[in-house]
Amino acid sequence: MSAYFNEANSAHVVNERMAPETSPRLQEVMGSLIQHLHAFIKDVQLRPEEWETAIDFLTRTGQMCSAERQEFILLSDCLGLSMLVDAIHHRRPEGATENTVFGPFFVEGAPEKTMGSCISLDEKGELCLYEGIVKDLNGEPIAQARIHAWSDNADGFYDVQQPDQQPKWNNRGVFTTDADGRYHFIGIKPVSYPIPDDGPVGQLLKQLGRHPYRPAHMHFMIEAPGYDKVITHTFVQGDNYLESDTVFGVKQSLVTAFDPIEHPQAQWRSTFDFVLVPHPRTSTAT
Amino acid sequence: MSAYFNEANSAHVVNERMAPETSPRLQEVMGSLIQHLHAFIKDVQLRPEEWETAIDFLTRTGQMCSAERQEFILLSDCLGLSMLVDAIHHRRPEGATENTVFGPFFVEGAPEKTMGSCISLDEKGELCLYEGIVKDLNGEPIAQARIHAWSDNADGFYDVQQPDQQPKWNNRGVFTTDADGRYHFIGIKPVSYPIPDDGPVGQLLKQLGRHPYRPAHMHFMIEAPGYDKVITHTFVQGDNYLESDTVFGVKQSLVTAFDPIEHPQAQWRSTFDFVLVPHPRTSTAT
Repeated sequence: MSAYFNEANSAHVVNERMAPETSPRLQEVMGSLIQHLHAFIKDVQLRPEEWETAIDFLTRTGQMCSAERQEFILLSDCLGLSMLVDAIHHRRPEGATENTVFGPFFVEGAPEKTMGSCISLDEKGELCLYEGIVKDLNGEPIAQARIHAWSDNADGFYDVQQPDQQPKWNNRGVFTTDADGRYHFIGIKPVSYPIPDDGPVGQLLKQLGRHPYRPAHMHFMIEAPGYDKVITHTFVQGDNYLESDTVFGVKQSLVTAFDPIEHPQAQWRSTFDFVLVPHPRTSTAT
Repeated sequence: MSAYFNEANSAHVVNERMAPETSPRLQEVMGSLIQHLHAFIKDVQLRPEEWETAIDFLTRTGQMCSAERQEFILLSDCLGLSMLVDAIHHRRPEGATENTVFGPFFVEGAPEKTMGSCISLDEKGELCLYEGIVKDLNGEPIAQARIHAWSDNADGFYDVQQPDQQPKWNNRGVFTTDADGRYHFIGIKPVSYPIPDDGPVGQLLKQLGRHPYRPAHMHFMIEAPGYDKVITHTFVQGDNYLESDTVFGVKQSLVTAFDPIEHPQAQWRSTFDFVLVPHPRTSTAT
């Protein structure tokens, strides 16, 4: 085989260039990436002017990124790549709570709250009582589980998107379960919102005839010693965008009823139990 | 099939979101891209921390781009993607001059020169007489062909990379053939040089154990009415990097002898005939 690159041998020639001492994992990842990208270009016989459009798109995507905006994550989310990586690495047994995308709006350091507290601080929106149990696959309650909860406000924005308009830590809180594994707190019934769509990713969605909306959801992250961390949402049953979440985050098991209730603080109730699986045992445990 | 995304149906669900009125070509290109990217992630079981590395790499690549630097084109070049697109769209009959990468250093508006002129203006390097014929597949000379020639200087830099150190239009010129199709001019015998490797692409090459060098070459672009434009290089026979050009631009037919000569102006001679093919006839010609 010629050492020179041509249409037939292209991916092979590129991959042969990797030095033998390259990390085996990098060889595996780059080797597969090269094969798939070359196959893509051949499959569609990508035209020079389309290649230029792609270069321009990637450049603008990179240049849109800032401390407050990660346009490449948005791109990955909208192409289903983020959820696919998440799905591959969080396969759980039947009955365990499923993961979904982390999203860009989690903030470390949100206030610890006592059970029953309200995390909504801007007096906007309809309030909801969130309650349930953190338990294991056998139904045993898990004490000392830390529950991080966060959501948008009634206008569809997270506090970090509107630092001048929303109170700090609006719609964020951390709760710790007691011996009974139970949690309950007040937040808003979240609303659906568009992902930031004023950049290259928004333009791509438009060209594909796709809307930029996510169905209404409350974010949860559950940590408990000895158990796999769960990063997930609960989605509001009946939301218009459940079947067309622009980042493909919805799973049937995460769609949750929000029922009207009589309660001094809340108009709605949403009950959801989190089921955690133990950490995989490592063979090198000491 | 569920409308919800999972590991098994992922590419299908993403592609189903495209609206029916999306341009058929965009559907074809995006459909194939999504399938290949999802297959890649599944093939290598891409890990969340690797995904983060990729997001960071793409972001830094975009942010390295400026008016003088196109890091995404460098990336495409080093992964063989640019040459593959070029190869697919410039399939030519046996005997015709082959294309290679355009490169980022062409500049519109270089001076028209009379045959025999010297394009090297900085008195650096060893001079070479470039000569040959522009002709068609039957060997008939092509008159009024415009030949754009450009190269690095003897230090391995193009004039546009060193605007303060090199004379304007150093090692650039445009020549027009007479009735005999012949060309001849003086330039330097070019030298091999590294592509800019102080950015993310250079870091990637290092991790892959690859050097950043291109073998020495003279750039040519040949335009003649009625013929396909040729964008190519001639490569210096014997160069150390011919078989490892970091952008995969070398083709056997473009490797050219540089022979020592006795000549008042030049130490070397490089003879190369350019063979052009007619424009494809369009069925809608009027």
